[in-house]
Amino acid sequence: MKTLITIALGAATVAVLLAQSSDTPQFTGKDELVVPNDYREWIYLSSGLGMTYGPIADASADRSPMFDNVFVAPTAYRAFLSTGKWPEKTMFVLEARSSNSKGSINNAGHYQTDRMGFEIEVKDTARFPGNGWAFFAPQGKTAKMIPRTASCYTCHPANGAVDNTFVQFYPTLLPIAKEKGTLKAQP
Amino acid sequence: MKTLITIALGAATVAVLLAQSSDTPQFTGKDELVVPNDYREWIYLSSGLGMTYGPIADASADRSPMFDNVFVAPTAYRAFLSTGKWPEKTMFVLEARSSNSKGSINNAGHYQTDRMGFEIEVKDTARFPGNGWAFFAPQGKTAKMIPRTASCYTCHPANGAVDNTFVQFYPTLLPIAKEKGTLKAQP
Repeated sequence: MKTLITIALGAATVAVLLAQSSDTPQFTGKDELVVPNDYREWIYLSSGLGMTYGPIADASADRSPMFDNVFVAPTAYRAFLSTGKWPEKTMFVLEARSSNSKGSINNAGHYQTDRMGFEIEVKDTARFPGNGWAFFAPQGKTAKMIPRTASCYTCHPANGAVDNTFVQFYPTLLPIAKEKGTLKAQP
Repeated sequence: MKTLITIALGAATVAVLLAQSSDTPQFTGKDELVVPNDYREWIYLSSGLGMTYGPIADASADRSPMFDNVFVAPTAYRAFLSTGKWPEKTMFVLEARSSNSKGSINNAGHYQTDRMGFEIEVKDTARFPGNGWAFFAPQGKTAKMIPRTASCYTCHPANGAVDNTFVQFYPTLLPIAKEKGTLKAQP
């Protein structure tokens, strides 16, 4: 019986550790955090191909557009399902990948290939001024905060449908935000 | 102490149940299974836009191409990371979504909108003849096996890079299959 209890306690601990690994930001300095390298095991929100916020001319000549994939940490995702809001310590990852058209049996359209980069977005209102969100660029095992002069700090709060995030582009979350009444009025 | 042990046992049980919900096929009949409605919480593998296996002419005039998203059950994913092979009871979901170009602040490229359909792929060599894989189409809460005359039953084994699956289009799994030596020779 004692062995069984030990196994059960061990299993519970392992389960909790697995669930929380990298699920919330681990800061290594004022403006630095550990890169959550397992973000591909987080919850997938959506992808775009060649999404363009600026003038159309920027994209029209692009024959090799990039895919972007968005992932959110599981704990934050579950909170959003319940409330339509992002809790403290929410983490997003935006990943960019090259596209290819011809390969194997595919001969038109686009599929994803190599990762070209990724960025991390974190909500921590006690740590970050303004609306409490900050963006980070990976540099090896840690990620440095992107300077506040970057356009993401003005575009996200101005245009994100929920808080600092583009829920209008996440088709499984948009109905939840509508139901919970957490959508901002859109411009 | 007894209370603590009970809580620990409870937590372990809950964790195991959460991890396994819908993670393996639950058959309701010879050729029917329960639709795994939480597949969006599985592991994301990749997306394509307007991927076309047939003549290019089929796709060239398509101004509203569809996205496809591929998800695999977490237990099968973890086995693949270790072995480069898909274990018995592996489940995949292929989801098709409409695309949109103009919406919110986006004015070029494509982002995902409504789900247009999805299919389930299952490996169970004791149940399915041939190479042990079968495809299912949802009809409400259950999914019916797609007839063996469908093209998926010939195309997947002929062209899938690993077993019955298109690992050549899953950029995080392809290096694992190469490392483990489980890639088929490509035509």
